[in-house]
Amino acid sequence: MSGNSFGSMFRVTTFGESHGPGVGVVIDGCPPRLPITVEEIQRELDRRRPGQSHITTQRRESDTVEILSGVREGVTLGTSIALLVRNQDQRSGDYDEMRTKFRPSHADYTYQAKYGVRAWEGGGRASARETIGRVAAGVLARKALAAAGTIDIVAWVQRVQDLEVEVDTTTVTRQAVDANIVRCPDAAMAEKMIARIDEARKAGDSLGGVVEAVARGVPPGLGEPVFDKLDADLAKAMLSLPAAKGFEIGSGFAGTHLTGSQHNDPFYMAREPSEGSRLGSGKVRTRTNLSGGVQGGISNGEEIVLRVAFKPTATILREQETVDEQGQDTTIKARGRHDPCVLPRAVPIVEAMLALVLADHFLRQRGQCG
Amino acid sequence: MSGNSFGSMFRVTTFGESHGPGVGVVIDGCPPRLPITVEEIQRELDRRRPGQSHITTQRRESDTVEILSGVREGVTLGTSIALLVRNQDQRSGDYDEMRTKFRPSHADYTYQAKYGVRAWEGGGRASARETIGRVAAGVLARKALAAAGTIDIVAWVQRVQDLEVEVDTTTVTRQAVDANIVRCPDAAMAEKMIARIDEARKAGDSLGGVVEAVARGVPPGLGEPVFDKLDADLAKAMLSLPAAKGFEIGSGFAGTHLTGSQHNDPFYMAREPSEGSRLGSGKVRTRTNLSGGVQGGISNGEEIVLRVAFKPTATILREQETVDEQGQDTTIKARGRHDPCVLPRAVPIVEAMLALVLADHFLRQRGQCG
Amino acid sequence: MSGNSFGSMFRVTTFGESHGPGVGVVIDGCPPRLPITVEEIQRELDRRRPGQSHITTQRRESDTVEILSGVREGVTLGTSIALLVRNQDQRSGDYDEMRTKFRPSHADYTYQAKYGVRAWEGGGRASARETIGRVAAGVLARKALAAAGTIDIVAWVQRVQDLEVEVDTTTVTRQAVDANIVRCPDAAMAEKMIARIDEARKAGDSLGGVVEAVARGVPPGLGEPVFDKLDADLAKAMLSLPAAKGFEIGSGFAGTHLTGSQHNDPFYMAREPSEGSRLGSGKVRTRTNLSGGVQGGISNGEEIVLRVAFKPTATILREQETVDEQGQDTTIKARGRHDPCVLPRAVPIVEAMLALVLADHFLRQRGQCG
Amino acid sequence: MSGNSFGSMFRVTTFGESHGPGVGVVIDGCPPRLPITVEEIQRELDRRRPGQSHITTQRRESDTVEILSGVREGVTLGTSIALLVRNQDQRSGDYDEMRTKFRPSHADYTYQAKYGVRAWEGGGRASARETIGRVAAGVLARKALAAAGTIDIVAWVQRVQDLEVEVDTTTVTRQAVDANIVRCPDAAMAEKMIARIDEARKAGDSLGGVVEAVARGVPPGLGEPVFDKLDADLAKAMLSLPAAKGFEIGSGFAGTHLTGSQHNDPFYMAREPSEGSRLGSGKVRTRTNLSGGVQGGISNGEEIVLRVAFKPTATILREQETVDEQGQDTTIKARGRHDPCVLPRAVPIVEAMLALVLADHFLRQRGQCG
Repeated sequence: MSGNSFGSMFRVTTFGESHGPGVGVVIDGCPPRLPITVEEIQRELDRRRPGQSHITTQRRESDTVEILSGVREGVTLGTSIALLVRNQDQRSGDYDEMRTKFRPSHADYTYQAKYGVRAWEGGGRASARETIGRVAAGVLARKALAAAGTIDIVAWVQRVQDLEVEVDTTTVTRQAVDANIVRCPDAAMAEKMIARIDEARKAGDSLGGVVEAVARGVPPGLGEPVFDKLDADLAKAMLSLPAAKGFEIGSGFAGTHLTGSQHNDPFYMAREPSEGSRLGSGKVRTRTNLSGGVQGGISNGEEIVLRVAFKPTATILREQETVDEQGQDTTIKARGRHDPCVLPRAVPIVEAMLALVLADHFLRQRGQCG
Repeated sequence: MSGNSFGSMFRVTTFGESHGPGVGVVIDGCPPRLPITVEEIQRELDRRRPGQSHITTQRRESDTVEILSGVREGVTLGTSIALLVRNQDQRSGDYDEMRTKFRPSHADYTYQAKYGVRAWEGGGRASARETIGRVAAGVLARKALAAAGTIDIVAWVQRVQDLEVEVDTTTVTRQAVDANIVRCPDAAMAEKMIARIDEARKAGDSLGGVVEAVARGVPPGLGEPVFDKLDADLAKAMLSLPAAKGFEIGSGFAGTHLTGSQHNDPFYMAREPSEGSRLGSGKVRTRTNLSGGVQGGISNGEEIVLRVAFKPTATILREQETVDEQGQDTTIKARGRHDPCVLPRAVPIVEAMLALVLADHFLRQRGQCG
Repeated sequence: MSGNSFGSMFRVTTFGESHGPGVGVVIDGCPPRLPITVEEIQRELDRRRPGQSHITTQRRESDTVEILSGVREGVTLGTSIALLVRNQDQRSGDYDEMRTKFRPSHADYTYQAKYGVRAWEGGGRASARETIGRVAAGVLARKALAAAGTIDIVAWVQRVQDLEVEVDTTTVTRQAVDANIVRCPDAAMAEKMIARIDEARKAGDSLGGVVEAVARGVPPGLGEPVFDKLDADLAKAMLSLPAAKGFEIGSGFAGTHLTGSQHNDPFYMAREPSEGSRLGSGKVRTRTNLSGGVQGGISNGEEIVLRVAFKPTATILREQETVDEQGQDTTIKARGRHDPCVLPRAVPIVEAMLALVLADHFLRQRGQCG
Repeated sequence: MSGNSFGSMFRVTTFGESHGPGVGVVIDGCPPRLPITVEEIQRELDRRRPGQSHITTQRRESDTVEILSGVREGVTLGTSIALLVRNQDQRSGDYDEMRTKFRPSHADYTYQAKYGVRAWEGGGRASARETIGRVAAGVLARKALAAAGTIDIVAWVQRVQDLEVEVDTTTVTRQAVDANIVRCPDAAMAEKMIARIDEARKAGDSLGGVVEAVARGVPPGLGEPVFDKLDADLAKAMLSLPAAKGFEIGSGFAGTHLTGSQHNDPFYMAREPSEGSRLGSGKVRTRTNLSGGVQGGISNGEEIVLRVAFKPTATILREQETVDEQGQDTTIKARGRHDPCVLPRAVPIVEAMLALVLADHFLRQRGQCG
């Protein structure tokens, strides 16, 4: 029940600090005989990697992953899978000031208040480097989901500050998302976003925004009422990400402006045959999807659509008011390399968390209901 | 790991369907020797009870609670506490149509798809009656929190559709909230909200909105990185509520429009003495609280402020398009008694979930860090 | 993670004290659509019931069970199942002395030391009445196991003090076990055991012994290395029973006197077709079964055979040295009704725990491995 | 809930196969600010290491441990601690026959039956190398226990086949245990045991026996009724060890031969002051300790005494009947290096498991009861 694990049947446990020997993950409960290569994992880590463009942090890390256990001759063994990434570019000198001063809106103070000690370089355990293990585990989660049908998971940057796009969740592809460095599938808006982030970067400031994600092809029946609802676990998954401040599923906050008669998603029978539905040869569909694919905490077979709000990066290259460990008022000005906007790199992380939740609930559903 | 439990050290397990013999909760891990009376629990259940005003459902339930175990001579024993509320007003006739037809945007279809069977009267397990156990457990959770300091938890209706109030989180009281039937501490706005809900009720329609909540006096250090962050567990807690579609902590979605230099909460030393802080005799405070009291997933001693979006009630008294269990297109028109707006009764439920999360994390923190 | 729950996918949570309003259980994760009647549960509770013969406690309890939730029209719903048994014969007067004095080798002192408070009448939560919930849940567990094949679970009294029988685990039936009040399938030895227990009862003393159990038809593959091994979870299940002091699987302690060449169970191919084995049309069998049906923590398809040591009942009608809550040396002489030997009533409880462990591991295996 | 984790608040997750890149552990929930060095961990691993004497396996492994996370400047951080030991001497050639044949009474067949795949070299995940992570974690567990008082944990070989010693649990020291290679504190018996094991080794055979352990100084109050009783969790911990077939606490199986009046442990007040007891200035003690330090599943302040039965090592250098993956009857003769008797190396492992259980329950008790 300690805080470094997530999931119940498909369960990941991450470890590692920003400036320690390395970071990694242990995955427990992964189904056996899934084909997996280290290259597949590496490919996804490369999407998360620092230094991939001029609008991300310039910390130089190859993030090369090693499989320590649980995989043999290219397939999973069913036993615990351990993955390790060594830290390389630990320019701790950048962080000297952090040894005694708390960076505003970072985790420096709260870790110190909680534990009475902290790995102060680069945020230690609170660093976004921790998400390496999540992204790596997400690759396995997608593999596990193959037995649940053809499930597509795609996330993208939907908004940076006030620069917003409307994306067709049914047709958007990962290819379109990865076509530009900001990971917004709308090329024109992507350019604007990149310019805006660049501007903030040059000003020593930072920006926030919204990542949107869709999971297509999720069968009905995933989600465990009443506490482990699919959307409840998704909310937890997303709020566990660094800098996340909000979560919505389907119509979210905007939907509260509608009336019930406007908001309800009418059911109808679609002609195509369906295995997911237990109701004869047709498929139960909804005309609209304001529910975002989840009703009563259980997937209904429609697209699962969610949004995550990420605040502007706390690290900024400006002098800020703060206090130090001795309880003295002081100021701090960050020097460490950082992302002026976490959104582009958050995209693969949100996808990974979405995959982890779905894989866990798929195994749980298969366990209980056969 | 099954879905009917919540929390790890302070752990609740709920049971019961809308139209079965009753609903209840087992609370495990509650500290011993806490004074508790059945009246205290009843008082809180009365705030959640149906039929408390003309803008709530008219189902007649006294929701009388019985303590089955874990309490003796007015104090908790440290062993599992079971609480039971018998169902009384089960006018199942209202639900005949639901036997075979799925109500749009309800859990009827998804329960059927998941389990291949369902308690169709009144939503069965998906009914909001399930939250009785949560509210009852919340009373114990508040008791458990007493050892953590003087913690105030208050929630209120912040918005109904577009009728919105700005509430001073530092001064708002439960008394002000409970002063009117819509549970909005602004009397003028409360009147408007009541009128609006009444209007929807008469039109056989329903409304949604936002509940806001604050926890004051939470000591720094609660929350378990990296997955069981305080805000992550709060997000899960709130999204596990019926009709919840969104969650925000602190600045939430709105905060993503700011830059980092605008959004960061500067630290300063407050003069008053503090036990919570491990930093000398002063207390570390932040000038602003866009973080909403949580940084890096751990409480920082500031007010915890969150918001939950509730969609308009799915049950409306209008004919809607749907399908039946045989996979035929059809229509349905609800007759069951229902809330035209869940917000007023959601207030004590949100408070309960907030208390449950805090109590759990307080015990976890005490366990690990002493 | 609190101590009143057991199992991960098929999870039970018990509640209730010996002399409170009642005892019961919530079962979470039970597969849906299992046929179940209250009579089936009652029948098993009657095997555990006090007062069923002159060698058990004379406390008068009908132990009538009520299904509060999770079952409808004779089938499980997949949601949490709550079962309640009201306490009836609470002759607390018998226990007045226990209010301040600790009964030797009971849980009185340790509960007081742990919680600083206790329900002193009849042992409170430590009473064997708590096992009612286990036995009731065991009925559901057996139902859940039906999907795993035809699994027979039978337990019996193998030894009372030094009165011991050798039982053929392959042929012993529940009918033979229940043919006499001591639940030993050897009629001649049963008579001796009954006489011995009667003798102890008259002497105000008590006896212990060993319950043996077999599960036949368990498919290979159940058990989760490396910590949740099938035998590890069985050991925990059995040691969680009141008065249990030891556990063995297969050859147990006696097997340590053999050499490896004597102890190993040679494999061979049996001609009969097998679904359990993934190895062609034959079935992998072992010539001997010193392993007790578990190898490497995973079932191998052979009979699972285990033994549990139960100490002589702590409650005896003799004066004993003890201390009181004020820390004074004193003496105590029990008056409460009690079992002079727990073995006969432990039989259905051991069976229930065995079923709970197997059901949990069956669902886990189905979840992970499909 | 997956099988590779143990404990709830002090939680360990192990990974690694016998012949993969390495083995290790992630420890979650460890209290912060505990002083720890890599040398302290190494010292304990050296007690478990293969090749330490001529009566253990001759596999050459330095078992050098690396701390990957969770420790900084010599103290624990409160975050997840990852420890890694690289495998070195992987003479896989020894195992060629195992690729297709199942070794009798090993986990080869059951892993194959469960997962449909297995790491066949050296038992893969079922290898005793997995216990490296447990022993390493045990060092941290002892550190965590320091806050609970001065707790001594000592285990020893109590019996090899029929060569048995009676050990004074109150005075035995680790120094006496480690004084000889068989880890029996009685020097004369140790010689006999060594000779007996040597004999078995030369005969290509193997032996089993019993490890006994004591924990002195455990405060009263540890253990969570009713399922997570201290002895129940100890039973699970011990039965999760490779080759374990039985568990006893206190009087165990032998105690069942006594009557209640013989078996009960009378309480009395000891003069020495006590912090553990909540009963005034004296200390509640028992005249005898047939309970083995646990009553009603909760520690009573007396010595915790337990015994674990280990079967004779399954690997023997003799031809044995078995089957292969194709379902053909065949024979196998092991060649891999192995322990002719696991007992001497099991001693530090049993100690580690005992420490893990106590640490977990100490944190749980501190969390719930303060």
